[in-house]
Amino acid sequence: MSDQPLVIFTPSGKRGRVAPGTTVLAAARQLGVDLDSVCGGRGICSKCQVTPSFGEFAKHGVTVRADALSDWNKVEQRYDDKRGLKEGRRLGCQACIRDDVLLDVPPESQVHRQVIRKSADARPMVMDPATRLFFVEVAEPDMHEPSGDFERLAAALADQWQVTGITAGPTLLAKLQTALRKGDWQVTVAVYSDHTGAAPLVLDVWPGLHESGLFGLAIDVGSTTIAAHLTDLDTGEVRAASGLMNPQIRFGEDLMSRVSYVMMNPGGEKELTAAVRAALSDLATALAEEAGVDPALIVEATIVCNPVMHHLLLGIDPTELGQAPFALAVSTSLSLAAAELGLTAINPRARAYVLPCIAGHVGADAAAVSLATAPEMSDELMLVIDVGTNAEILLGDRTRVLACSSPTGPAFEGAQISSGQRAAPGAIERVEIDPETKTPRFKIIGTDLWSDEEGFAAAAGQTGVTGICGSGIIEAVAEMRMAGLLDPSGLIGSAAQTGTPRCEAEGRTHSYLIHDATAEGGPRISVTQGDIRAIQLAKSALYAGARLLMDERGVDRVDRVVLAGAFGAHISAKHAMVLGMIPDAPLDKVTSAGNAAGTGARMALCSVAARRQIEEGVRRITKIETAIAPRFQEHFVAANAIPHATDAFPELTQVVTLPDVSFNTGGGDAGGGRRRRRR
Amino acid sequence: MSDQPLVIFTPSGKRGRVAPGTTVLAAARQLGVDLDSVCGGRGICSKCQVTPSFGEFAKHGVTVRADALSDWNKVEQRYDDKRGLKEGRRLGCQACIRDDVLLDVPPESQVHRQVIRKSADARPMVMDPATRLFFVEVAEPDMHEPSGDFERLAAALADQWQVTGITAGPTLLAKLQTALRKGDWQVTVAVYSDHTGAAPLVLDVWPGLHESGLFGLAIDVGSTTIAAHLTDLDTGEVRAASGLMNPQIRFGEDLMSRVSYVMMNPGGEKELTAAVRAALSDLATALAEEAGVDPALIVEATIVCNPVMHHLLLGIDPTELGQAPFALAVSTSLSLAAAELGLTAINPRARAYVLPCIAGHVGADAAAVSLATAPEMSDELMLVIDVGTNAEILLGDRTRVLACSSPTGPAFEGAQISSGQRAAPGAIERVEIDPETKTPRFKIIGTDLWSDEEGFAAAAGQTGVTGICGSGIIEAVAEMRMAGLLDPSGLIGSAAQTGTPRCEAEGRTHSYLIHDATAEGGPRISVTQGDIRAIQLAKSALYAGARLLMDERGVDRVDRVVLAGAFGAHISAKHAMVLGMIPDAPLDKVTSAGNAAGTGARMALCSVAARRQIEEGVRRITKIETAIAPRFQEHFVAANAIPHATDAFPELTQVVTLPDVSFNTGGGDAGGGRRRRRR
Repeated sequence: MSDQPLVIFTPSGKRGRVAPGTTVLAAARQLGVDLDSVCGGRGICSKCQVTPSFGEFAKHGVTVRADALSDWNKVEQRYDDKRGLKEGRRLGCQACIRDDVLLDVPPESQVHRQVIRKSADARPMVMDPATRLFFVEVAEPDMHEPSGDFERLAAALADQWQVTGITAGPTLLAKLQTALRKGDWQVTVAVYSDHTGAAPLVLDVWPGLHESGLFGLAIDVGSTTIAAHLTDLDTGEVRAASGLMNPQIRFGEDLMSRVSYVMMNPGGEKELTAAVRAALSDLATALAEEAGVDPALIVEATIVCNPVMHHLLLGIDPTELGQAPFALAVSTSLSLAAAELGLTAINPRARAYVLPCIAGHVGADAAAVSLATAPEMSDELMLVIDVGTNAEILLGDRTRVLACSSPTGPAFEGAQISSGQRAAPGAIERVEIDPETKTPRFKIIGTDLWSDEEGFAAAAGQTGVTGICGSGIIEAVAEMRMAGLLDPSGLIGSAAQTGTPRCEAEGRTHSYLIHDATAEGGPRISVTQGDIRAIQLAKSALYAGARLLMDERGVDRVDRVVLAGAFGAHISAKHAMVLGMIPDAPLDKVTSAGNAAGTGARMALCSVAARRQIEEGVRRITKIETAIAPRFQEHFVAANAIPHATDAFPELTQVVTLPDVSFNTGGGDAGGGRRRRRR
Repeated sequence: MSDQPLVIFTPSGKRGRVAPGTTVLAAARQLGVDLDSVCGGRGICSKCQVTPSFGEFAKHGVTVRADALSDWNKVEQRYDDKRGLKEGRRLGCQACIRDDVLLDVPPESQVHRQVIRKSADARPMVMDPATRLFFVEVAEPDMHEPSGDFERLAAALADQWQVTGITAGPTLLAKLQTALRKGDWQVTVAVYSDHTGAAPLVLDVWPGLHESGLFGLAIDVGSTTIAAHLTDLDTGEVRAASGLMNPQIRFGEDLMSRVSYVMMNPGGEKELTAAVRAALSDLATALAEEAGVDPALIVEATIVCNPVMHHLLLGIDPTELGQAPFALAVSTSLSLAAAELGLTAINPRARAYVLPCIAGHVGADAAAVSLATAPEMSDELMLVIDVGTNAEILLGDRTRVLACSSPTGPAFEGAQISSGQRAAPGAIERVEIDPETKTPRFKIIGTDLWSDEEGFAAAAGQTGVTGICGSGIIEAVAEMRMAGLLDPSGLIGSAAQTGTPRCEAEGRTHSYLIHDATAEGGPRISVTQGDIRAIQLAKSALYAGARLLMDERGVDRVDRVVLAGAFGAHISAKHAMVLGMIPDAPLDKVTSAGNAAGTGARMALCSVAARRQIEEGVRRITKIETAIAPRFQEHFVAANAIPHATDAFPELTQVVTLPDVSFNTGGGDAGGGRRRRRR
């Protein structure tokens, strides 16, 4: 036996011998164990708690005696009296090691703690925020050695925390002066230090120990919705999440109509910029209120968005993004003062990090999806699709990642569909059509009952059946195809051809009636031939984009399809494949990544390593511009058929047999618009 | 002879052989010769002009043939046609070296050109500004290799100018997008890169070649006056200089009354901050207009000021500076956005550099004086005095520099003097008293005639004789002492004691009449016993401060006295010494450094090396706090006598014999207030 006790930390497994009397915190530092401390060992922040275990531990080859640690001292007693220490816990900065000991570091005592993400197959996120709190004792001013308060703070941070070369702006200096005196020369400072190599920046200061934490906003600025997660920068926990409509909608529903607005109204970008910036501040205020958090404690924001939103938020004219060569004004990430983005409702010195864009059509939102889904770490060849008004598509594995965007248009979001609506209570979101009777049943948002189940009418009573949303129209069209109501070219058959009166003539084409609510004063919900064409255009664009990337990789199939976005979370893999939206794949290999863009924003908020990772990742991604790819048009035309004119769907065939029908009578213009291309 | 021609550059004397056909600019770069170029060798900026010499040059051991350089090419011809090249000049980027050649680089073609300062003994200043212009050709966007405009600019700067790792804010990015397209992918950028190690920051961008230069403001924020020099950042030339009253005067005449205002009116510092910031913007606007310079071309400002002005400008409560331990909130230099100081009338992305403070009473103005006078480079022991309401005093040489401040009060500026006034036309600035007749004559500001010379009345007619300014009162008191009207204790003799009716009784003391203008409706200008006491307090404080530093250095005399400040420029060395304001020294070793604080600000504006120099210098200066120095009071009392109670003035004695008089009759309160100490 050595004179020096053996210390073993779990879960890291790190072990070593230390001098008797060493504090647990000091031992952890000697052995490189990740044990947090804000107060620097003064027994006041309680961040360094550990749980000792006593007895014999064969696995670790150690026997821990009851007196392996020093007795509770006054500091621990005072802390326990005042705040209460959990049963079995010790303060690492107070408990001294006397004999061999086994110490568990609970997750909340780790600086770089792992945050388990909800999505089952997602890798855990390791906390590594840019802004951290440091409690310091600052030397008092001395007439004999005159120096500024800030210089003495800098010396204290260097000495007590090895944080060197700090800088600060005037408003912080003014606040520091007061805080130092109020805190009797003990203060907690929030220091922002990211991966750019810029000098650490003091963002805020509080007298004494600051215990109310720090927060950040992970913001996803979408064309339609601006969503944000108010996140605890210590634990990674989401304290409040909310969204609001993008007020730019009044200048144009979709991106290109907003770009047109700017082109037609010189200086119009200023209005658009002001609108979105005001919305960010409103959202920040609302989230802080919801979470009961002082807005001044929100010291960081990360922002993801598509390129047009990106430029408009930054105050850059987006016109260039509406025309070839689709040149971004800036594509790298940006680290700037949140106030520079008009985000003034939070801490006045807060920082903002805007994720990098991938290309003129593939924005920081796609970069965030890439960060959250990490195709570059996948052994399988992974196709990631973020479906929105524009679809962002990533294809890759460990060897190489490709990206493109494809102009799907808003049909998948229920727009440009005769009975279409946004996903809201009352909207049909699931559809089944009996292949024998050709009768549909459906589910609406707001109840789990199918429309033919008992109690549906009552359950739907509040909202009624109001329309059909994006996932509903996809299921409806796919079900029509499976039930033989729709032929591979996308033609809806007549009542005579299909044998159901629900196929009603509408001029020279037909529509299929899903639900007639006119008796209750509601709408008549049909899928029209025009709806089918709109869905065909959208899905052809999506499929053609994916195919283009597959061509580039020289493959005919992918191992896994990951659907990102709110829409992706509600889509049925089988129906998407029947429609030919996505390439053929085993159904269990089609999964949802949830709101991957939002997750990516939150990862970048909680971890500078994640920022470094996505910046490097974006540089390595190969960008494919669909607008100039000669084969895009060819893929687009071939993808018009349902599911596809030429590509085989062997995996799909194993689970679904599609009827071989054709309703083309040779006349009419049913195929019109097939070759139209939208941008 | 080598195949490679020999190239000799003057004035540097650098020489070397280059491949035939090398351009002069390329040769200069190979040989490390400082030859400017903004356009990077495209023949458009003309910054790289050189003057070749032809013939035999024994001194350089070279014979230059008439065809040593290539003939004028089209680019030079076009430039000459359009703008005109000076006789004998060539464009260094166009002229190619064919044979041995001697080339002179004129000052305007040097990046680090020397700027000769007006003051005869001042070292020349070498241009080394933080902000420089770079002309770049930026790659056009390419859909196949998508990247942002900013990334392509960054690549161009790295490739064409070796300027790497640039950053920029959103407003620059927006402007860059437009400029690149307007300039057909050729732009000039202004890049700020200082000595702090922060990433180079793009401040502005212009389409094509920007030829209107860049400017900076060197600002001296005094308690009474705010002065600024609008300076060309390329040549160092002052394009306009102006000053305005510090609007904070309405909150208090001197520093301490402003600090009191803040102490008595919580939040009052905000008013004071807003007032001085608004004045800076006003001054910037006025200077730009005066010089005919676009305010947007003012991209930098350097600021010097005393600690109270420093804190108020930064928005920091100055209360701490009014009480022991006189703690500064920050003492290091600050590099920040000019907008953070409310300096918004100039380029919106302009930078500001605030010089470091030395101690709680020795501010950035004193640091600027130190930069301009450079005692740390002096072989002689140099005493530098900047006389204002507070006197800043530096003592040092190559081995060590000491600094302190001393509370002289405003008497030297003509305040608290019965007939005192600011230095303005009509004010008496020089005085001579005939030792026999005891009759004075004087000069006023506005005419070079003495008052007893013919034509004075006419010359003075416009203003009249309105009062006595700071340098006038010093001469008057010293002359009174030399003429035997004043005894060493500071008592003015009676008419009987002095033999002149100009010594008039005023209660229990006497005053000396210098000029009676009452007949012309003007004032009666006397020096009263109260005036003498005010001057004694001021000069004792000044002398005691200097002595304290001399004690610290263990010396009884200094080699040189340098008087800084506008006041220092007008002071008479002999009179100052008779008064005992300054220690004894040979009269020719008492010199003026002019507006050294302003000069220091301008040096820091034109040179990052100067910034580095003063930051290092300030760290090495030993600060002496007069308020706690036990011997200060002792020195102060001993210095009350004129010139001094105990110190000998051997140098002074060689040129002046002071009459041995005493007017103390035992009664009265003539010595009252001697021990009062002001802060």
